[in-house]
Amino acid sequence: MKAEIVSVGTELLLGHIVDTNASYLAQQLSTLGFDVYWISQVGDNQSRIVEVLRRAWSRSDVTVITGGIGPTEDDLTRESIAELLGETMAIDPGLEKDLRAMFARLRVEMPPTNIKQAALIPSAEILPNPIGTAPGWYVHRDGRVIVAMPGVPAEMRRMWSEQAYPRLRALGSGAVIVSRTLKVAGKGESAVEEMVRPLVSSTNPTLATYAKQDGIHLRMTAKAKDRAEAEARIAGMESQLRHILGTFIYGVDEDTMEKVVGDLLRERGMTIATMESCTGGLLSSTLTDTPGASDYFKGGLVAYSIEAKKACGVNAEILERHGAVSAETAVAMATAARERLSTDVGVGITGVLGPDELEGKPVGTIHIGVDIRGSTKAVSGRHNAGRPELKRIAVLRALNIVRRQLLGT
Amino acid sequence: MKAEIVSVGTELLLGHIVDTNASYLAQQLSTLGFDVYWISQVGDNQSRIVEVLRRAWSRSDVTVITGGIGPTEDDLTRESIAELLGETMAIDPGLEKDLRAMFARLRVEMPPTNIKQAALIPSAEILPNPIGTAPGWYVHRDGRVIVAMPGVPAEMRRMWSEQAYPRLRALGSGAVIVSRTLKVAGKGESAVEEMVRPLVSSTNPTLATYAKQDGIHLRMTAKAKDRAEAEARIAGMESQLRHILGTFIYGVDEDTMEKVVGDLLRERGMTIATMESCTGGLLSSTLTDTPGASDYFKGGLVAYSIEAKKACGVNAEILERHGAVSAETAVAMATAARERLSTDVGVGITGVLGPDELEGKPVGTIHIGVDIRGSTKAVSGRHNAGRPELKRIAVLRALNIVRRQLLGT
Repeated sequence: MKAEIVSVGTELLLGHIVDTNASYLAQQLSTLGFDVYWISQVGDNQSRIVEVLRRAWSRSDVTVITGGIGPTEDDLTRESIAELLGETMAIDPGLEKDLRAMFARLRVEMPPTNIKQAALIPSAEILPNPIGTAPGWYVHRDGRVIVAMPGVPAEMRRMWSEQAYPRLRALGSGAVIVSRTLKVAGKGESAVEEMVRPLVSSTNPTLATYAKQDGIHLRMTAKAKDRAEAEARIAGMESQLRHILGTFIYGVDEDTMEKVVGDLLRERGMTIATMESCTGGLLSSTLTDTPGASDYFKGGLVAYSIEAKKACGVNAEILERHGAVSAETAVAMATAARERLSTDVGVGITGVLGPDELEGKPVGTIHIGVDIRGSTKAVSGRHNAGRPELKRIAVLRALNIVRRQLLGT
Repeated sequence: MKAEIVSVGTELLLGHIVDTNASYLAQQLSTLGFDVYWISQVGDNQSRIVEVLRRAWSRSDVTVITGGIGPTEDDLTRESIAELLGETMAIDPGLEKDLRAMFARLRVEMPPTNIKQAALIPSAEILPNPIGTAPGWYVHRDGRVIVAMPGVPAEMRRMWSEQAYPRLRALGSGAVIVSRTLKVAGKGESAVEEMVRPLVSSTNPTLATYAKQDGIHLRMTAKAKDRAEAEARIAGMESQLRHILGTFIYGVDEDTMEKVVGDLLRERGMTIATMESCTGGLLSSTLTDTPGASDYFKGGLVAYSIEAKKACGVNAEILERHGAVSAETAVAMATAARERLSTDVGVGITGVLGPDELEGKPVGTIHIGVDIRGSTKAVSGRHNAGRPELKRIAVLRALNIVRRQLLGT
């Protein structure tokens, strides 16, 4: 079955906001087995909305439209659907009561224009909006469906998963699509593509690679008549990929590198501390993005200058002999962090973010040191990237080194 | 004049990527005085691309299409434009030479399919791509224009600003649109909207408010026959807004809070150090996102546990009397950071990010302490937001307090 996505709002056409709703819905519709062939954005203009909806109605089984269902006169999605279908809107007494009750609860007087949020056409059923004032519409007529939802992403996503998704699943082709993403760190995109080349021609599941901020993503997508069969197909390909890539695969789907490292530390009853120079605290901040990080993360030191490094316990002789930007200093920072904060693991990062070179070392140089109970490792590299990206690369690499050292690989 | 944006790529219709190109181009086209009425995304399918282009060609003066100009057989934008216009593609000898030279420089053999990147139709002119292999097309026929550019954002943006933008400016209506954004911190969206209400009904310049991660943005947009007149209109509204909001306005356009604070410190010859608990290093990392931050940022301490706070010099009596999550401790952290790292300014942040409450204090509690040469200030608040957002809110508030203290407001 074919599905189409329409996003309404002049702010989209002025480029003031990015249409993240469309990509979210596209992904969701594909998991339901719908083929999405068209996505479009249109302004707050009834004749253009109707034109876009008319085309969608003629070629797609399901049209999902977001935005334009607020209370103002610029909100024209309901009016456009009514015009498309030649139906008349009328205030639904039950809805009006709910709407007035909501305003009463908020102790706010209901603006007169809000009444149109209680309007319905005969073919439409209400989709409740528990976190906003604009209810959605589920229109089902002549074997076709229009789902109208708010443009506010949080309201849309909740209405989608609680109301629209179950209805569309019942309507769907019966085919089930399942996706699973394996996340790889420590290898570049072309190296990973080369390694998985034999599997890329597979048609079910398909395999696609994406270079992302947190590594290379390998996305497997299977289509089958039921969930169990789709999952079995995915499992088959996953075991081949794991055979090829081994521990370069650090996680699956929503896993983050910091959570994977945190879980390894917690399992082993180990603690970690950091000392950062060029990353300025991004490593410790990233480690603490995971709830419960206080189980293993003890603290971090950000030592931007040589004096601060010495004050934080970095061996002065190493600093003088090798310079602040060196593998030896990175390891000395790791050891100093571990000793200062009495942890099992210490991590040190030093490097050159630019704009100028430092100690004759070029911009993009990064040294990472890891000390696990006295056993140390240093990894050095140079990356061609901007300042914020270099910081993220350094943090991801540092966490990946800790992960691989903990796994003994 | 009317402009239309088309983004090509099946990955957009699967929701694997968000279409940031469309919003960038929409914004750019509006600064050129074009009206953008339609944006659409279409997959790698020639008949559907041609259908979308045919509609655009019939109703818009300018169509900007991104994606689908790579070397693979899925890249069908060139073929679709040729079909739309009934023109035949031919390899351009000069382009072929350039393409082969580029591969020679990269010391890579040119795959045979890449030759199509040297193809042209009679109505198309080449737009060079200095950072990729796919050149763009500028098609000008029958008073209409199609601009075809790569889908890779960095390549597209460079080609846009160096090649397409100047051509379209020459073509445009002559009207100039200028936008300027004032950034506000320390006041909520509805409070700001209330304060600027008298100006919201202005039609030239218009005024729009947006709640963003780094505060409330006030975007002024003026249209005029030349740049000077548009800028004069903006300047008039800006002075009214500055009169209303004063130092709640922290920056303009690309200014970041951390750069504004950094510039204030540098002007005054002052240095800064941080001690963080719940933000885990995000404050120090943010301060060091600005190139040249080592001029004023000396270092940071991330003290996650009470022991770490004591070890970092936080007064133990204060910790015991008021708890780790308290305004008093936040100030003691600021003072300890300032003293430990011998700086003019110290900042301390402590709070509860959850999932559980701490010391009986609810999730979302944040205390910020600032110590400027011994003069201290504490600000406390509670925010209803998720973990990463709470961290960002705390960092923005802390920097804003430093800014306002430095300004003496």
